[in-house]
Order: sequence, then structure tokens, then C-alpha cells
Amino acid sequence: MPRFKLTLEYFGPAFAGWQRQAHAMGVQQVLEDAIEKFCQQQPRLHVAGRTDAGVHALGQVAHVDIAKDVEADTVRDALNFHVRPHPVVVVECARVDDDFHARFHCTARRYRYLILNRPAPPALAAHYCWHVPRALDVPAMQEAANTLRGTHDFSTFRAQGCQSNSPIKTLDELRFEVKDAMVIVHVRAPSFLYHQVRNMVGTLAQVGTRQWDLSQFQAALAAKNRAAGGPTAPPQGLYFVAAHYDKTVLETGLPDPKDDNTA
Amino acid sequence: MPRFKLTLEYFGPAFAGWQRQAHAMGVQQVLEDAIEKFCQQQPRLHVAGRTDAGVHALGQVAHVDIAKDVEADTVRDALNFHVRPHPVVVVECARVDDDFHARFHCTARRYRYLILNRPAPPALAAHYCWHVPRALDVPAMQEAANTLRGTHDFSTFRAQGCQSNSPIKTLDELRFEVKDAMVIVHVRAPSFLYHQVRNMVGTLAQVGTRQWDLSQFQAALAAKNRAAGGPTAPPQGLYFVAAHYDKTVLETGLPDPKDDNTA
Repeated sequence: MPRFKLTLEYFGPAFAGWQRQAHAMGVQQVLEDAIEKFCQQQPRLHVAGRTDAGVHALGQVAHVDIAKDVEADTVRDALNFHVRPHPVVVVECARVDDDFHARFHCTARRYRYLILNRPAPPALAAHYCWHVPRALDVPAMQEAANTLRGTHDFSTFRAQGCQSNSPIKTLDELRFEVKDAMVIVHVRAPSFLYHQVRNMVGTLAQVGTRQWDLSQFQAALAAKNRAAGGPTAPPQGLYFVAAHYDKTVLETGLPDPKDDNTA
Repeated sequence: MPRFKLTLEYFGPAFAGWQRQAHAMGVQQVLEDAIEKFCQQQPRLHVAGRTDAGVHALGQVAHVDIAKDVEADTVRDALNFHVRPHPVVVVECARVDDDFHARFHCTARRYRYLILNRPAPPALAAHYCWHVPRALDVPAMQEAANTLRGTHDFSTFRAQGCQSNSPIKTLDELRFEVKDAMVIVHVRAPSFLYHQVRNMVGTLAQVGTRQWDLSQFQAALAAKNRAAGGPTAPPQGLYFVAAHYDKTVLETGLPDPKDDNTA
């Protein structure tokens, strides 16, 4: 069966997260139902990052095998027809090799977190950011964030229920950008623990509001204990931005994502 | 009575436009009701640009006299409390001179229009842009837009019901910017005719989709007739971004008080 790579956008607050669930609507179910309507098969979607309830995606990646001889653009348009009225869309669809795997071959995941930092609440972005009225010291947050870069035991930022084998992860980027009243946090790693980004952002906000200084932040990381960390930042500020499939994987014999559009 | 300048943000689709109306909720009413709750007076708000139903604001400006001896930040916080749950907020509040006038002293108004240009509909931005699935030739749109810059009779882009004395206006900026799939139109002028921005964008889209060439666009402008123009772009893509108050212009006299500035 032809395999397709789907690049997905979805509005987090409308869903109980990515995964199919018995009593709530997951993004996976909406898409699998749409595929079933399109090609009368029971499909199985595999995804790069299983986002939690309320978390948005701008560039989530999934793959699926479709028992129908169709162009990739036709798959995109048909699924966008059948997912309605749920706020999830296939932004791009590309034919890929049969051994491409959205989850296991993903070499880096990128997230973004938006904090609206001003006294006035958001009129337009209420469902799209975390509103922090108290002025944030962004340089202090960046200084603390820099101590998280590299390889650490991230137990302090790991939520209960995390299925990862190890709390040791490598963080490649945690960068703050300020655009008017919006503080944008750029995060990139090969993989993350459960709630890791939201727990890091919530704890960094303790530094930003000067409730914690740098040494307290570093002590929290060193404690390797969730109880030592700050609160979990709310889900509506978090965006799954992109999944990368890069050369190191290619050299082991797996497909080149740049060839994906050749369908 | 102390006069305050309010910088406002509001989510257009929640309102029947700026103006107070008998059978629908205008932004003006929500704010005037909030001021009344705060200081037990019947206030009168004056605004830089009376936006139409569905149009957003990021930096609308209004002024109001408040019969209470209070700090500007207190006015901001009190109004943000009393406007709830309506999606309008006072982003900034500042004490101004008694002769400051948000409408008559405004020397330039800036709007932004967002077009999502890709086959897939928006999952996150459905209420925040105009979705145009057909590929737009943005350089061709910019070339046509350049012919609108300067002083012209803009009757082709003037909606019925416009209260401006004259269809002759000066357009200072009409610039396209492309960010991923989003086409952002930046527009600036001292004042606008009713629906002018949405009519210009809708007509430029005819050029972008290659239904019209440059000479057809120029003929439409020269016709000085709304019937010769293209369709009106939808309201949810339009944002009132900023009102400028420039001292040098103030000293030379007031702009046309009958201008709609509803763009």
C-alpha cells in the first residue's frame, strides 16, 4: 500500500490531545475517520509527537498507508473535506517510501511556546497563548534556560505517566524571542519527556517574575524531582511546530525527506 | 474632567462593528457600559476608525472624559474588569490634554489584511484571515497596488453608504509581505473611504489569481465606479493596527470630519 506523509495543523483546545480515546475526541480519531470515509479501510496513523489535550500543532507529522492509487494532493484535499467541521487540516501530503516512519525516524522535534506579557489580557489570542500580566525578566529567563541546554536528567520537568525509558534527554535549543508584548520560546530536541516543555516554561516563569533566582533554578534541575520544579504552563500556549527527518538517518538507509514530494 | 486616550484590541467577529446599535452589540457599547460601571457617568467615546462588523483591532485609539480622579493604569485595569466577558481590552491608557481628539486629530491610520494562500483551509486562523486556496501572484498584486499609491479618486473602492465628502483620498502605503503561506497587506493613509481597504484587497486578488491583468486593474480605478471594481474581501482578514497623531499636521488644521475611516 502506498505510504503518505501528512503535515498537520490543528487547534488544540478543540481536542482531548492526539491519541484516540474512548470518551473524548482525539485528533487521531478525526483523521482516521476521515481516511476511512475516503478509502473504506481502517487506517492506522503514526505520529511524530503525541501532543497533549489543548496543545496546538502547526507542523505535526504523521504517516499512513492508504489502499488507493491516488495523488498526494488528492489525499490532502479529500481528508480536508472529510475532517470537517473539526479544526484539523492536512497542510501538505507527500508520497514516501514504504519504510518511512513518522515517529521512529524523527530526529528532532520543534515546539514553540507563546506568553503574552502585559497587564491587559488578550482580546484576540485568548486560546493561543499564556497570559502573564506581571513583567517578565526575559534575559534572566534566557540565562536560566541556557543551563538546560545539552544532556541532563530532566526528572524535574517530567510529568507523572511519562512512558520514556529514561529521564535523560538532550536539549538542543531553548531560546527566547520578544515581539512587542509576546514572548516566544523556541524549543528543539531529538525527543521530550511528558509535559517537559510546559514544565520548563512554567519553571522559567518563576525566574522571569523574580520569584526564583538562577541558583534556585539550577537547584531545581539538580534535584531531579518534579516536586522541586515550578508549575506546568497551560497547554494553549504550546505549539508543535515541526518534525525533522535528517541525513544521519538517511545514511542508515532510511528515506530522504527531500525526496518525499516526488510521488 | 480628565481626558484619557485608550489603545484598544478587539476580536471583530464578536461584534456588529464599532458603533453603538439598537439591536446588536457594538464595541462602543461594551466600553461605554464598562466606563459607566466604573465611574457612574454616561460617557461618550470618540474613536479613530469606526471599524465595520467582523473587523479586528490591534491598536484602535479612542478618547473619553472620566469624572474621577484616577491613574491611567487604574482606568485600564478597571475597564478590563468591567468589559468581561466581551473580547475587547484596553491595552494602554494614558492621560492626554483636554483638546486631544482621537478622531479629528488622527493624521494617519494603519490597517493590515491577512490572506492565507494555500490549498488547505486554516485550522487555527479561521477567524483571523481570508483563505484563498488558488495560488496568488504576489508580485503582480504589488505592481497593481503601486498604481493606487498617491492621490486618486477611489470611487471604485467606495462602498454604498460612505459619508465622506469626497472620494479623493491619498494612499501612502499598500505593501505586500509574504510569510510562509500568509500574505500580509500593509496599508496606511490619512483616512479611508467606507470599505476601501477590503474593496482594494478584493480587487487586487483578481490580479493575484490572474483573472485580471494590470491594465484591467488600472481601467477599474479609472472608471471611478464601484461596479467596475472586484469583490469585497471578507472582514475577518482586516485589522485596524494603529492611529498616528503627528504634531505637524495638527498645527495645519483638521482632517475632513465626515470621513468614515471604516475602510
